[in-house]
Amino acid sequence: MAATIRDVAQASGVHVSTVSRTFSAPHLVNTETRNRVLAAAEDLGYRPNRAARALTTGRTHNLGLIVADIANPFFSHLIKGAQAHARTRDYHVFVADTDEDPQVEEELIQTLAKQVDGVLLCSPRLSNRVIEKLREDVPFVVVNRRMKGMSNVLMDVGSGAREAIGHLVSLGHRRIALLAGPAGSWTSREITDAAHAVPGIDLTVFGPNSPTEHGGLALAEAVASADVTGVLAYNDLMAIGLVEGLTALGVEVPGRVSVVGIDDIVAGRVSRPKLTTVAMPAEAAGRTAVDLLLQLVGAGETATPALATLATNLIIRDSTGPVRRELRTDP
Amino acid sequence: MAATIRDVAQASGVHVSTVSRTFSAPHLVNTETRNRVLAAAEDLGYRPNRAARALTTGRTHNLGLIVADIANPFFSHLIKGAQAHARTRDYHVFVADTDEDPQVEEELIQTLAKQVDGVLLCSPRLSNRVIEKLREDVPFVVVNRRMKGMSNVLMDVGSGAREAIGHLVSLGHRRIALLAGPAGSWTSREITDAAHAVPGIDLTVFGPNSPTEHGGLALAEAVASADVTGVLAYNDLMAIGLVEGLTALGVEVPGRVSVVGIDDIVAGRVSRPKLTTVAMPAEAAGRTAVDLLLQLVGAGETATPALATLATNLIIRDSTGPVRRELRTDP
Repeated sequence: MAATIRDVAQASGVHVSTVSRTFSAPHLVNTETRNRVLAAAEDLGYRPNRAARALTTGRTHNLGLIVADIANPFFSHLIKGAQAHARTRDYHVFVADTDEDPQVEEELIQTLAKQVDGVLLCSPRLSNRVIEKLREDVPFVVVNRRMKGMSNVLMDVGSGAREAIGHLVSLGHRRIALLAGPAGSWTSREITDAAHAVPGIDLTVFGPNSPTEHGGLALAEAVASADVTGVLAYNDLMAIGLVEGLTALGVEVPGRVSVVGIDDIVAGRVSRPKLTTVAMPAEAAGRTAVDLLLQLVGAGETATPALATLATNLIIRDSTGPVRRELRTDP
Repeated sequence: MAATIRDVAQASGVHVSTVSRTFSAPHLVNTETRNRVLAAAEDLGYRPNRAARALTTGRTHNLGLIVADIANPFFSHLIKGAQAHARTRDYHVFVADTDEDPQVEEELIQTLAKQVDGVLLCSPRLSNRVIEKLREDVPFVVVNRRMKGMSNVLMDVGSGAREAIGHLVSLGHRRIALLAGPAGSWTSREITDAAHAVPGIDLTVFGPNSPTEHGGLALAEAVASADVTGVLAYNDLMAIGLVEGLTALGVEVPGRVSVVGIDDIVAGRVSRPKLTTVAMPAEAAGRTAVDLLLQLVGAGETATPALATLATNLIIRDSTGPVRRELRTDP
């Protein structure tokens, strides 16, 4: 049986409320008493009930982190970054997964809101309107979506997409397909807008799509029969699925079609051909988001929202190559 | 501003404690009052504070899930299985990552113990002694370690290892290396014991090792210079890292060395050569662990520990092949 607050009170000869105060507001307890209580607590192996303490102090020292798909390596790196950094600030991070379902996302935010000091919401699929309503209950930092009046951590994926398409163009590609991500994704919209703004190319957009290996695989026939020589996919999982599908159809990558992903996950580095990709600073985003969230938690109602934008960069590997002469067009 | 319990009490004309009781012990409130309180709560958008309710009812409807490395796809599939299944039972699962550090593991269990109804501890690195002490505070199910007197979900990785080595033997391999996993891993011990028990082979064990791609990469030189033609790795990440390292050294896989992983993660399916592996039922293990944990939570002190052992199976792909004639030995 774990020691209770009553055991500690009895052992140190004080009232239960004094023990409680020693843990929740130690500066209000005189030094001699405080030391006696803490010594007794240590002897008995007593740990203050954080849930109970939360009711007194309003702080749990826990953060919630909500992601769309915990099995997507992009999110696991973001989680690792956030957890490691929070640990150095004496915070634990508990992670929940929405399975790309806006309904579940809303439910999880509501559940977490009263149990943690703040929530990191990554790549939300909910509408801005719903998020704005939910954040009345708990401090929020949103990662991968720009929302005015809120703290945001963004990755400069628009630049990344421009750089990726510029790379394809430099290899002679002009007819380019963009595989969009899920509906409701800010990142997907940024990529699409950036791609549309590139001059001198003939762009075909497929989507919205499920941002998974299967989502990419399912597009292989459409891409093979479209008149394109270069592809930019919403993420590496889709790019890997597409390459699998094209290979199965006898369409060589990069001989016939060049493919670029986004994220830089391990699977892209070990797949054949090795995937050219736009690296996203997922771990750094996790760390930065924790910093911004703890600023909000510390400042309370007076908090000023902050915006951090992190750079992306193109990594050229083997899934992109020069357009074949017989496929070249000079528009 | 979210509605408080006081707002609901005022709107329904009852005392705050009656509102509290309506949510924590509805059978103790008369029907007419209960309906009035619930209607007011709904009108005002009031949600009972689950932390406060937990202090009254002793139930949070949350489960904790602790894994060694959230970035290892094996664990993400286990998490997905557990979360999806818990959701159907009206439970949320919050995940925490120990970063393979037994100290952090102990801390997280202590933190979670008072905030959730039960803990799923996956692939612990802590000693049995410490785990047995910690479980006095909260119901526990341990995944991937056999512990007498506790509920366990195991995968039959011993059979899997035997099957993998049998496959290598059937291809003519006799000199076989085993890349062990981390110290403290029950799974690694099971694999090692099973490998030692296979007759007629010459086994070299490397390790303990970090169960990551880097851990496998770091062993490439040692494996290349050891006199072996077949390798079984503790997991797919290590196998993939090893293949990368061997390829960089000019050692062909499977031409010169055949490599088998364990887990069946996506990266192994898209890597070249495609990885032969022992598939581990990670999602099913997550679901089963939730079932066993909710049995413990429901039964309280009278709970009987249960043991579930799930089958593994060998998936033969391209990273294993017949031993070359000039390398063949017939002991």
